[in-house]
Amino acid sequence: MKVVTFGEIMMRLQPESYGRFLQAKKYDMCFGGGEANVAVSLAQLNIDSAFCTKLPDNPLADACVKELKGFGVDTSFIARGGKRMGIYFVEKGASQRPSKVVYDRADSAITEIEEDDIDADKLFGNADWFHFTGITPALGEKPRLMLKKLLDTAKKCGVTVSCDLNYRNKLWSREEAKKTMTSFMPYVDVLISNEEDVKDVFGIVAEKSDITGGELSAEAYAGVAKRLIIEYGVKKVAFTLRESLSASENNWSGILCDAKSCEVAKKYNLKIVDRIGSGDAFAAGLIYAMLTKQSDGDAIDTAVAAGALKHSVEGDFNIVTAEEINRLKGGDGSGRVQR
Amino acid sequence: MKVVTFGEIMMRLQPESYGRFLQAKKYDMCFGGGEANVAVSLAQLNIDSAFCTKLPDNPLADACVKELKGFGVDTSFIARGGKRMGIYFVEKGASQRPSKVVYDRADSAITEIEEDDIDADKLFGNADWFHFTGITPALGEKPRLMLKKLLDTAKKCGVTVSCDLNYRNKLWSREEAKKTMTSFMPYVDVLISNEEDVKDVFGIVAEKSDITGGELSAEAYAGVAKRLIIEYGVKKVAFTLRESLSASENNWSGILCDAKSCEVAKKYNLKIVDRIGSGDAFAAGLIYAMLTKQSDGDAIDTAVAAGALKHSVEGDFNIVTAEEINRLKGGDGSGRVQR
Amino acid sequence: MKVVTFGEIMMRLQPESYGRFLQAKKYDMCFGGGEANVAVSLAQLNIDSAFCTKLPDNPLADACVKELKGFGVDTSFIARGGKRMGIYFVEKGASQRPSKVVYDRADSAITEIEEDDIDADKLFGNADWFHFTGITPALGEKPRLMLKKLLDTAKKCGVTVSCDLNYRNKLWSREEAKKTMTSFMPYVDVLISNEEDVKDVFGIVAEKSDITGGELSAEAYAGVAKRLIIEYGVKKVAFTLRESLSASENNWSGILCDAKSCEVAKKYNLKIVDRIGSGDAFAAGLIYAMLTKQSDGDAIDTAVAAGALKHSVEGDFNIVTAEEINRLKGGDGSGRVQR
Amino acid sequence: MKVVTFGEIMMRLQPESYGRFLQAKKYDMCFGGGEANVAVSLAQLNIDSAFCTKLPDNPLADACVKELKGFGVDTSFIARGGKRMGIYFVEKGASQRPSKVVYDRADSAITEIEEDDIDADKLFGNADWFHFTGITPALGEKPRLMLKKLLDTAKKCGVTVSCDLNYRNKLWSREEAKKTMTSFMPYVDVLISNEEDVKDVFGIVAEKSDITGGELSAEAYAGVAKRLIIEYGVKKVAFTLRESLSASENNWSGILCDAKSCEVAKKYNLKIVDRIGSGDAFAAGLIYAMLTKQSDGDAIDTAVAAGALKHSVEGDFNIVTAEEINRLKGGDGSGRVQR
Amino acid sequence: MKVVTFGEIMMRLQPESYGRFLQAKKYDMCFGGGEANVAVSLAQLNIDSAFCTKLPDNPLADACVKELKGFGVDTSFIARGGKRMGIYFVEKGASQRPSKVVYDRADSAITEIEEDDIDADKLFGNADWFHFTGITPALGEKPRLMLKKLLDTAKKCGVTVSCDLNYRNKLWSREEAKKTMTSFMPYVDVLISNEEDVKDVFGIVAEKSDITGGELSAEAYAGVAKRLIIEYGVKKVAFTLRESLSASENNWSGILCDAKSCEVAKKYNLKIVDRIGSGDAFAAGLIYAMLTKQSDGDAIDTAVAAGALKHSVEGDFNIVTAEEINRLKGGDGSGRVQR
Amino acid sequence: MKVVTFGEIMMRLQPESYGRFLQAKKYDMCFGGGEANVAVSLAQLNIDSAFCTKLPDNPLADACVKELKGFGVDTSFIARGGKRMGIYFVEKGASQRPSKVVYDRADSAITEIEEDDIDADKLFGNADWFHFTGITPALGEKPRLMLKKLLDTAKKCGVTVSCDLNYRNKLWSREEAKKTMTSFMPYVDVLISNEEDVKDVFGIVAEKSDITGGELSAEAYAGVAKRLIIEYGVKKVAFTLRESLSASENNWSGILCDAKSCEVAKKYNLKIVDRIGSGDAFAAGLIYAMLTKQSDGDAIDTAVAAGALKHSVEGDFNIVTAEEINRLKGGDGSGRVQR
Repeated sequence: MKVVTFGEIMMRLQPESYGRFLQAKKYDMCFGGGEANVAVSLAQLNIDSAFCTKLPDNPLADACVKELKGFGVDTSFIARGGKRMGIYFVEKGASQRPSKVVYDRADSAITEIEEDDIDADKLFGNADWFHFTGITPALGEKPRLMLKKLLDTAKKCGVTVSCDLNYRNKLWSREEAKKTMTSFMPYVDVLISNEEDVKDVFGIVAEKSDITGGELSAEAYAGVAKRLIIEYGVKKVAFTLRESLSASENNWSGILCDAKSCEVAKKYNLKIVDRIGSGDAFAAGLIYAMLTKQSDGDAIDTAVAAGALKHSVEGDFNIVTAEEINRLKGGDGSGRVQR
Repeated sequence: MKVVTFGEIMMRLQPESYGRFLQAKKYDMCFGGGEANVAVSLAQLNIDSAFCTKLPDNPLADACVKELKGFGVDTSFIARGGKRMGIYFVEKGASQRPSKVVYDRADSAITEIEEDDIDADKLFGNADWFHFTGITPALGEKPRLMLKKLLDTAKKCGVTVSCDLNYRNKLWSREEAKKTMTSFMPYVDVLISNEEDVKDVFGIVAEKSDITGGELSAEAYAGVAKRLIIEYGVKKVAFTLRESLSASENNWSGILCDAKSCEVAKKYNLKIVDRIGSGDAFAAGLIYAMLTKQSDGDAIDTAVAAGALKHSVEGDFNIVTAEEINRLKGGDGSGRVQR
Repeated sequence: MKVVTFGEIMMRLQPESYGRFLQAKKYDMCFGGGEANVAVSLAQLNIDSAFCTKLPDNPLADACVKELKGFGVDTSFIARGGKRMGIYFVEKGASQRPSKVVYDRADSAITEIEEDDIDADKLFGNADWFHFTGITPALGEKPRLMLKKLLDTAKKCGVTVSCDLNYRNKLWSREEAKKTMTSFMPYVDVLISNEEDVKDVFGIVAEKSDITGGELSAEAYAGVAKRLIIEYGVKKVAFTLRESLSASENNWSGILCDAKSCEVAKKYNLKIVDRIGSGDAFAAGLIYAMLTKQSDGDAIDTAVAAGALKHSVEGDFNIVTAEEINRLKGGDGSGRVQR
Repeated sequence: MKVVTFGEIMMRLQPESYGRFLQAKKYDMCFGGGEANVAVSLAQLNIDSAFCTKLPDNPLADACVKELKGFGVDTSFIARGGKRMGIYFVEKGASQRPSKVVYDRADSAITEIEEDDIDADKLFGNADWFHFTGITPALGEKPRLMLKKLLDTAKKCGVTVSCDLNYRNKLWSREEAKKTMTSFMPYVDVLISNEEDVKDVFGIVAEKSDITGGELSAEAYAGVAKRLIIEYGVKKVAFTLRESLSASENNWSGILCDAKSCEVAKKYNLKIVDRIGSGDAFAAGLIYAMLTKQSDGDAIDTAVAAGALKHSVEGDFNIVTAEEINRLKGGDGSGRVQR
Repeated sequence: MKVVTFGEIMMRLQPESYGRFLQAKKYDMCFGGGEANVAVSLAQLNIDSAFCTKLPDNPLADACVKELKGFGVDTSFIARGGKRMGIYFVEKGASQRPSKVVYDRADSAITEIEEDDIDADKLFGNADWFHFTGITPALGEKPRLMLKKLLDTAKKCGVTVSCDLNYRNKLWSREEAKKTMTSFMPYVDVLISNEEDVKDVFGIVAEKSDITGGELSAEAYAGVAKRLIIEYGVKKVAFTLRESLSASENNWSGILCDAKSCEVAKKYNLKIVDRIGSGDAFAAGLIYAMLTKQSDGDAIDTAVAAGALKHSVEGDFNIVTAEEINRLKGGDGSGRVQR
Repeated sequence: MKVVTFGEIMMRLQPESYGRFLQAKKYDMCFGGGEANVAVSLAQLNIDSAFCTKLPDNPLADACVKELKGFGVDTSFIARGGKRMGIYFVEKGASQRPSKVVYDRADSAITEIEEDDIDADKLFGNADWFHFTGITPALGEKPRLMLKKLLDTAKKCGVTVSCDLNYRNKLWSREEAKKTMTSFMPYVDVLISNEEDVKDVFGIVAEKSDITGGELSAEAYAGVAKRLIIEYGVKKVAFTLRESLSASENNWSGILCDAKSCEVAKKYNLKIVDRIGSGDAFAAGLIYAMLTKQSDGDAIDTAVAAGALKHSVEGDFNIVTAEEINRLKGGDGSGRVQR
């Protein structure tokens, strides 16, 4: 089984510990980006994965490729060239102080990606799944065209397609997002989103939900899922359900619906080490579950457990094994020392 | 608008992470002290602030002045001379283990401050507010005299005066504190305190309150405030209300009273990164709110939100913006990532 | 008063912060091992303690001896020789992700300990107490023989003996453990265990208890204790009672029983910095309490408070003073800053 | 006395210690840029200095302004706006492995600087000196226009102008550099350069010199200086003279010429901690010396001593005092501990 | 072109900075071992390389495989199983204090390697070169047998074989080493050694050389090389020539001989960051040069330049590019900043 | 054999790496002081040593005592009480920038030492040697009186006495030093000094020597030694001979004279990691050599080799073994890796 993802990967720089930007002299560095995160997660779960992007020809990007390779991701479809690598700065929040992200991604190499930078036919030759997010088309005309080309090839090759809506208001307006993402929906088999993004992109609001902290109603999201399935023709819709109690503590669950019914996962109370990338961990868990033919109930439990564990791992990548996900899914969230 | 503060600033040394003194080989260093913390907080809130003190003429004190300058505090009234800079060592607590402070502040430069070390008339020429704490007069005869001189000048210049009681039992006895602080009360417009200090200094205990962890009764503190207003002639009294669940978790609120009525702020459940300086953050928030003409209800909400955020910031200084305080005050304590 | 312990001490290596093994480039190093942890704890409580083991003649072991000496432990009975020092790697867990231990202790020096490596008569000449754990006999024939010799000498000298069951399934089977530990029970005055180990070693399960997270029933454990007293002839049995809510949060208490009655300690809600070694901290607290003639009720409170504090201290050793334990035991777990 | 400088300041990120980019997970961060480095150096020497630039309105740039303010630089002429802050990555070399710089400065805020972003008349109202480098006009049309405006105003105000050629081949071609820098020479009183830049920009090569490591001939550089004075009409020319023995060891001196004669400074053998910014330290030393009316012989000794000390200081900024420069200049380079 | 290497890779743990074992609480971790170092170096030089070994099935070994994969080494022939991963501890020396290595490699997984753990025919299917060192046969009977099998297959497949003598006196006696290594010489085309190892293994001493610091005579080593070619039938012999001035400074060169003549490389004066692995960097440089058909004179210059650069890189692996080696070989060892 | 030393031990705080005070946010902490350094060095050389001082009763001093104990120093004669522990801040120099020390030692506990704080008779009961430095009497009246008492008791017990002149101009004037130190000379058997101190205290200048960097003449120092032996009646005089080339590189030797002749040690070229405490390492080496009955030639070689190694060890303490000193003394300063 092989999964292909396409998107941007950035250098992530974060003041050590809980340092604010005004205090920081030392930064922890890692790499991350929605689609790369999914590719790494899947490789950790022993699913072959290939990540496509464009990176400049400099040693910082070499370090990024080295990291992906180390995690077992196929990097042979990464084009090299262009001016710079995108960067994002993260200030880690705690308690009532939210984490803060400063993006510095304009004019990154992927915005200069050209049609023949990726051999799409070769890429999808033996692929089973293609995953993308709403970030990639927001990056510019060229990534959008490449995405279109990849989707066309994927469909031609009979590959299942998943999309995480992932709306970024710094990159484009809600109107642009709606127009573009709507045009991509016909390709999408599995739509993944959270409570905010579906509102921002498609303007669909769950009844009785309060995004900034209140308790989420699974039923309300079932209704939203149904609308998406009917209006946009996707086969399945999965939502992460997050209750943000503070920057240090969240409740976390998810729901997976098809045209007929919905499955709601167990809810976890999370003490947060690093929540960035948890949506991607959820998506990877879901893809893994579907590729390994889990039932919908099992699949959403797998996705939510994968995402739950991500909150305890530093960096964008969800460095957890299938065994760890299964143990949590199986009910052991006690955190007792494993000797 | 300009606020003046006067007091001691010390070098603060803390074993990295949760290390105990017996384990520590690496120390994190920052600077801090009640009145300096207030000056820095206000500068972060775009209020001009000047901090007065005396520091020795050595490169450690240079580093301190550099830090204050960087935060935008006017350091031109800092006298240089004297033998040494005060130091305090902090061991960071967690769960049931309290943070521990070892002071090494005897004979610091401020204890040698001379009357003409500060040009009080120039200092208060364009000032609107003067803030001091009960620590400064406890440091010795000379700081006490300087404080008296500054209070006289402040009053002469029509400047509003706030005082944070801040009793330190390592520096003086309760009797000395009561006598001295009582003598300063005629200068004070706004009295700031917490549940412990008002008991230690003025011997006034709130009914039904249990300082070491129990739930605090806002009404009881309203009663204490009224007594202070009547007995000591101050115009307003503000209390921080802290419920210490453990070294890792506190509940936090506040109350602001004038002769007629009291306003109680929203209560926050805090996961603690660093609670030192939170009282100063509260004081700065209150001064900021009053200078910007907020209502009493608004003002105590601002002060409490400022103090709440401090608990998530490392070091003595409350490095938060007015926008961040307003967002929290406005109800968003969800800690959702700000992208 | 003097306590003797005998067992293995290892180098402990842990990725900094919450890093997973796959991410780590920097490791924090300390030393630890059940019986050494008890010896260090007791020395911190101003009880003379001697730790016996065998360590190789290399500078890593020198560093270990230096650390023990620094904490005031008598290291003059540590034999030197053998091939290597045992190592264990710890990955720190959080939330639903458990801490993970990778042992690399095979063929460590203690497995080569010879009968005349320790002068048992001299060792117990002025000793009052001997403590061992179930780990030591699991390490091999030679440590088992040495343990037997020490127990014989201890009994000959009228020394009280305590044993912490501490079952390690990587080292031996439940059958081997049961057989061996049963043979040692006649020497034991005070048996210490937790809910898991007593089940693994003696096959005794508390009724209605769910080890991976559920609430523990003190009464059920009273029943287990009684069975152990009757079946194995020990005088007292102490259990730690842990409710594992997550890797970040536990509830923690304990129970101490003799043939007639049981005393249950106060329960603490713990935010966890490092839980490794908390059972040893409990054991040391109990030994300290018994040596200082505390009542059973007091003693179990002391043991539980000592163990509670350990969760807030990094490393294996419980670096806390008797004063700190007494303050917590006395009811002040508020974590208010100690100035 | 007041010096004005104008240019770009960037975030500098460097793998800790001697780590290569392929190894780095932790980066040390500081700020730096030719003209900012000069402004900070001068402030350390108690010369008033103002640094002009444009920085985006984000917290990373806030941290940069804080750092400059802390060092005492007047930041009130820093415009805020534009898209991003320039970044440069430095990999620290050693022995035969050179330090490596990866620039990521395209589209930084200064490239968007507008004519009215700086009030030039106010800026030069009480200024004595204006310093710029060849980097600024290479950044784009808008910085070039602003530089022209500032030079016009400086001349109008009778301010002395110095220029450090500083050729950057990543920014423009030699032809562009020659054309533009030639057009600025009529404004320049003091021209500062090193052996490489004068060759790259003006095509003038010192006889018998070998830039990549050989010994430099002071006489040859006297000849180059004379040509520059005659052909470009500058009053004085100063060269740093560097013999690069390796990335860890350099010899370092300088020469200062006017139309009549040249002064050569003492030569230092340097063990290198960080050589980036040493040319700027030299320039600042020279400006300081000239402003304080030192003779040419003294001035070049001051500049070379300042630059020598920079090699022992981490980061771009030359954090040394006038006293330290004078002690070295006075002959004490023994490095004996100062107690 | 593809190179195969076989040997042990260990976890390397080093006190940070210049810390001695008695001081260390923090360790830097990397992975290294002679043959793995060669494989990584070659991958950095864009030569396909496969590294064969056996590693236990635990997350520490997973981290090791991840690192090798990241550097582009083919890890598909690494067998998993066995008890433990070898570890070695390094204390970094300086000046007159030598670096110190404590090995903890007994019973590592490679000592349990079984004949069918590696598919030798597949491994050498498309290989051009096989490299091993004298460490591997010293590890035990099973690695020795596997080495024999690989050598037989390599010869059968017409693969060139190189051997680095690398004598380790902690692993076997000189007599054992001589007997075993002599038996392997018929397979060896290129023999690599340094001044010490050839003496220890074959008892051949260069005339007039003083290993602990004196100047090495290239001619004397030419004589040794000739004897090795005649007596042991190898085609080429290469020596590293190291003059150890101190732990901080070495001179470094090399010589390459065939039956007819010798080529001596340029000598470098090195300031040492980390000299461990420099012999492996030399070997990799030589293999690279030979595979790319460089003349003997060019080849030894390449090998020595590669080894020289290793001294400036932290860790076992020589993370340098072909371009960097060529620049140094071409004469630029000035260490000027590469912008 | 047992050596007693008496003096102050301080907390030493140093910005990490080469950071200047103006840059530092992280400090490395260790403990040090002339006489404590000697005691630790001797303990490392397997000589029993006891260190006497007074330290406050706080956890910082507990950490200090723990460190001394760990190194095997007898701490049972350390009095506890007094106000504070002395602190000194060290900024590490490099190349032409000297290391800088800021003392904060006024009013430390030792200045309050009382006559009965140390049981001198018990202390010297089984002692062979007493060592002190010129720092202790400079600290105040009380340490001076205690020193007098200890010297009286030492003489009474037939203990050999050594004194390191160690002049500190921040503590007393040259006149005071001369007067006091002259009064102590009748007790002194072995006088240790360097070129600066003997000039500062006794006004004796070696002919033709230039302290700030020039080459030292051993003969000149032989002359100085003879004068000291004749004028002050000491039996032996030892000088360290240091040529300060820079803060990174020194030449280092020594000379030992009695009334009849002088022995000059080998000279080492040192690359400096940390030179603080090297004089104490020299003194400890000399005491060790004399106690083990080495000839004067051997003894000065031992002292100089010990001191040489100290320059490569971080912190005040010379953590080296007798074997390491002997290897260097025996001629192996090559720094080849010890495997």
